[in-house]
Amino acid sequence: MAANTCGDLMLTFYYAPNSCALASHLALEHSGGNYKAHKLDFSKGEQRSSEYLAVNPKGRVPALLTRHGVLTETPAILVYIAQCFPAASLMPLGDAWQFAQAQSFNSYLCSTVHVAHAHRYRGARWSDDAAAIESMRIKVPQTMKACMQQIEDDFFKGPFVLGEDYSVCDMYLFTITQWLEGDDVDVNLFPKVAAMRKRMLDNPVVQKVLHSQ
Amino acid sequence: MAANTCGDLMLTFYYAPNSCALASHLALEHSGGNYKAHKLDFSKGEQRSSEYLAVNPKGRVPALLTRHGVLTETPAILVYIAQCFPAASLMPLGDAWQFAQAQSFNSYLCSTVHVAHAHRYRGARWSDDAAAIESMRIKVPQTMKACMQQIEDDFFKGPFVLGEDYSVCDMYLFTITQWLEGDDVDVNLFPKVAAMRKRMLDNPVVQKVLHSQ
Repeated sequence: MAANTCGDLMLTFYYAPNSCALASHLALEHSGGNYKAHKLDFSKGEQRSSEYLAVNPKGRVPALLTRHGVLTETPAILVYIAQCFPAASLMPLGDAWQFAQAQSFNSYLCSTVHVAHAHRYRGARWSDDAAAIESMRIKVPQTMKACMQQIEDDFFKGPFVLGEDYSVCDMYLFTITQWLEGDDVDVNLFPKVAAMRKRMLDNPVVQKVLHSQ
Repeated sequence: MAANTCGDLMLTFYYAPNSCALASHLALEHSGGNYKAHKLDFSKGEQRSSEYLAVNPKGRVPALLTRHGVLTETPAILVYIAQCFPAASLMPLGDAWQFAQAQSFNSYLCSTVHVAHAHRYRGARWSDDAAAIESMRIKVPQTMKACMQQIEDDFFKGPFVLGEDYSVCDMYLFTITQWLEGDDVDVNLFPKVAAMRKRMLDNPVVQKVLHSQ
């Protein structure tokens, strides 16, 4: 097991299948560190149980329980894992500009791309009207295609997001590409992204995490 | 002028009044560093001009132009400014856990709270139907109130977001509190947040930035 320079002997990770928690799950597995994963069943509402709300008052995943307390929000968890396991080289930590570019990419994914996707079946967060929720759902292919096109054109250096080095940005983008078929968007419209996704699907570490979902 | 340890003699900052760019603007002013600010007039569509799209292909603000290129997304810009001007102590950089908590707070603001607010008058991003867009608008007071209550109850240590130390998290949350009246939410329902906001309004650096908006 890789040493955790943040001092945790064991991390506890809460996730649900097909959620954005996959990004952090991949980073944990790639870190080589010690963690146990707890799967929540959203179909049973386990994320709203009093037991889980005592861990994470947001009632969402992912959540990472450390000796200091709980950490939530994917971009924060990805950086924390990268910092606690520097030997795994999960993102550029030593250069402020390179780090900023990685952060910018992850922030775009959480605040724009994931949000666009969420309008497919989380519309009730933003409207109480059934027809409105349906109108949001039908626009998702258009918004997700526009987001992916912008990534392909402007923010994907290749062969990985940040260039030569595989990073948490790939793990987060891969997570979102797993949703594209359901969003009625063909990933092959974006050749650089599609090639990264295929390479990750061929990676045994990625396969291990996918099989545990 | 404070030295920029990232090596830029001058940063160029693009913003629009009443946008989330205020958070980065406050951080820049607090940094003591050298920057020039360019105001975009959204009512004239300047964010979609070919000149600006050449700077920032997203057509949004904020954008920070450095000698390396452009940086976008508020959470990434805030951390970059904090790292380039360490003497200003804008956020906890030396401890991975404290840094992660600050990052988690900023990520929640960009991906959940700003998104909730954006449904007030950016509904066309997620639906093409006028009635749907109106139904999103009328739910904003409810969603913004819920977000602010969660911050007040679970994530605001006091007297500032992270505890004793004023940080970029306060600058970002302050920016969002400036929207609450328009969102039909009374900030005084959240006493800790309201006290932080009042303290910031009394700060001459904050007043300087507000007057330049």
